[in-house]
Amino acid sequence: MAAIQTVKGFRDFFPEACAKRNYIQSVWTSVARRYGFVEYETPVLENTELYKKKSGQEIVQQLFYFEDKAGREVAMRPEVTPGLARMITARQMGYKKPMKWFQMGSCFRYEEPQEGRSREFIQFNADIIGDGSGAADAELVGLAIDLMREFGFTEEDVVVRLSNRQIWVEYMERLGLDELQQSVLMQVVDKLERVKPEVSEARLKEIGLSLVELKLFMTEITAAHPVFAELRMNLEARGLWSFVKIDASIVRGLAYYTGCVFEVFDLKYDLRALAGGGRYDQLNALMSDGHVDLPSVGFGMGDVVVGLLLDRCADAKLKMDNAVTNALGCDVYVALADEGKRFEALKLIQQLRDDLRLKVEYSMQPLKLNKQFQMAEYLKAKWAIVVGSEYPELQVKKLSTRESRTVNLSEIAETLR
Amino acid sequence: MAAIQTVKGFRDFFPEACAKRNYIQSVWTSVARRYGFVEYETPVLENTELYKKKSGQEIVQQLFYFEDKAGREVAMRPEVTPGLARMITARQMGYKKPMKWFQMGSCFRYEEPQEGRSREFIQFNADIIGDGSGAADAELVGLAIDLMREFGFTEEDVVVRLSNRQIWVEYMERLGLDELQQSVLMQVVDKLERVKPEVSEARLKEIGLSLVELKLFMTEITAAHPVFAELRMNLEARGLWSFVKIDASIVRGLAYYTGCVFEVFDLKYDLRALAGGGRYDQLNALMSDGHVDLPSVGFGMGDVVVGLLLDRCADAKLKMDNAVTNALGCDVYVALADEGKRFEALKLIQQLRDDLRLKVEYSMQPLKLNKQFQMAEYLKAKWAIVVGSEYPELQVKKLSTRESRTVNLSEIAETLR
Repeated sequence: MAAIQTVKGFRDFFPEACAKRNYIQSVWTSVARRYGFVEYETPVLENTELYKKKSGQEIVQQLFYFEDKAGREVAMRPEVTPGLARMITARQMGYKKPMKWFQMGSCFRYEEPQEGRSREFIQFNADIIGDGSGAADAELVGLAIDLMREFGFTEEDVVVRLSNRQIWVEYMERLGLDELQQSVLMQVVDKLERVKPEVSEARLKEIGLSLVELKLFMTEITAAHPVFAELRMNLEARGLWSFVKIDASIVRGLAYYTGCVFEVFDLKYDLRALAGGGRYDQLNALMSDGHVDLPSVGFGMGDVVVGLLLDRCADAKLKMDNAVTNALGCDVYVALADEGKRFEALKLIQQLRDDLRLKVEYSMQPLKLNKQFQMAEYLKAKWAIVVGSEYPELQVKKLSTRESRTVNLSEIAETLR
Repeated sequence: MAAIQTVKGFRDFFPEACAKRNYIQSVWTSVARRYGFVEYETPVLENTELYKKKSGQEIVQQLFYFEDKAGREVAMRPEVTPGLARMITARQMGYKKPMKWFQMGSCFRYEEPQEGRSREFIQFNADIIGDGSGAADAELVGLAIDLMREFGFTEEDVVVRLSNRQIWVEYMERLGLDELQQSVLMQVVDKLERVKPEVSEARLKEIGLSLVELKLFMTEITAAHPVFAELRMNLEARGLWSFVKIDASIVRGLAYYTGCVFEVFDLKYDLRALAGGGRYDQLNALMSDGHVDLPSVGFGMGDVVVGLLLDRCADAKLKMDNAVTNALGCDVYVALADEGKRFEALKLIQQLRDDLRLKVEYSMQPLKLNKQFQMAEYLKAKWAIVVGSEYPELQVKKLSTRESRTVNLSEIAETLR
């Protein structure tokens, strides 16, 4: 057995890790629902063709793909958008627009594992489908910010770096750049912060631009730019604008973004982006060969980087730790002082679990009373109830205060409330 | 796009289907937690070796397996037990026994899809690790029954068919059957109800037995058999024994079961088993090459057959449908009677979502008031709040009764409670 390990880049979720994962998912779910998003899920396995259609042949390098036994080329989902586009194309007629949909689930990329990046990660995606307005952009960015707030992150911890591809479209048209040159420029801007100036300068020269020119243009892109006016007023009304910083370097490498684009970053630890997305008004038409043409805006957030930041921000970590303790602990430990009353204890346990819906633990094996109390502590029980020869008189102990009282069986529900 | 379909046997979860899936998962989770089980999860992808180790070379036919880019043979998990055994072996030292663990997640089998069986299904597993007692068997069977009860199934709907492999072990020893003959007998018993008597008779003849002899022995296996005494008293104390029927034909084909075995069936629709499991006291030792020797008992339940039964039992369906409506609907629809008050409305929406944690929807686009009310109905809103020129006076309407009243903004929280 020592020889059989997890597959490289894949994670075992032991109960503590699983409770953290569940906490992250519960935050995603509860905030998305408050925003009126409903949950869906695409299959974990799709025809490889689907991913090539969106991202071209290169995506295959990053896929876990294989031929199934019938010779079909299939791949484990590396992202959700293509599957969503497939689902929308199939059934969008049945839904009023806009559709506000979210999904959570594992995605898989064949990349070198490193901090903030594993081969399997859990991705949250939220999309507003069928609304091309700035109000929809605001609703989506608002959701991203309120997710951060619900985790316990403040404006001191995270920032939404936001821009709009329309600004670049107009700039590139003004310069008369062709499609290939536009793609070069977007790549240069996307990597501006990560590569040396000489490298950017050299690539810009190819398309007849200089770094000075580019940077001059970028300084014009501020919160005062009219393209941001509606978004700003909308998020100001919600009290969320303080999380946003206009940043012209955010273009999101992918070709399919058409308007608002944003990424969420932490401000202190230089982690990878926590989330990213934007408006993609033409992708559904591309994916459906023109059958469905719905303007959309969406973003994704992975569990790995969020998890790293949760561990580092004290207030957010406290919130998570409380949720984890709650998930792992029980409400009541029923201790047996008299083995002869085991069946009476089982009846009580069933009542507590079934009628009061409490998390109840007990020792299935006969055990000394002090050992049972040790287990109660280990299991983080809030209450201990001792069943002994005085049954139906019970000893009820609140473990945080060590307060103890004698209660009749018939009063137990009342006592625990 | 019309050409790109889901992979055969894989499911799209549109919001309605996803809400049903989530309902099933929420029942699994809440009951398992009340029983003191904590959640874990094994990876979706494991080294193929792991599954061969438990089930032999034949399992490979049923696996979605492939070589990854580094030449490793990997497989999508067909079941959870081998991954659990791997996790236990790695870290069981860190946990007090017994460990009561549950997991939910997709499993994958390359089989012909048919009613109640798809290539991807969601499996719930619960295991008690490190307790070899009948009390642990009872706790686990109790959980299986209470899961059924929580779904809304009664003794009229489902039955736990239960037996104990020890009875067969003793019988086979008495007959002096060797290992191969024992395996033949267990296969015959396992398939007794599904194959023609002549087929069973022929196979029994190979090992020197007759069908009459076998059936005679099986009639001796009743609830009065001493092997069931502890389990019966235990489940009677909980009021759950009425769900159990002793049934000697339940042996669970798999070789590794050593004691209590059971399967849960519906009583009216002849569906596949809803759940099945039992005691496997030697499997952890096998999987860990003898490093870890922990007696265990566990069972699995898939989402597909449970889903079929939920659709057919009226009371259970009503419970599910309510949960689904609740998941898909919103609490409050904020309607805008005066477009000039949009930012005031957004502020109110933020307050309702953030302070009151309500699910709030509204129209991002300007829309006639009657159209907004149509959307409120479509989104199953409980309340509508109309923001108009009288702001901060608001019109609050309870949509179930059409009751309407005028409320000041400052009283809104009070009004909705």
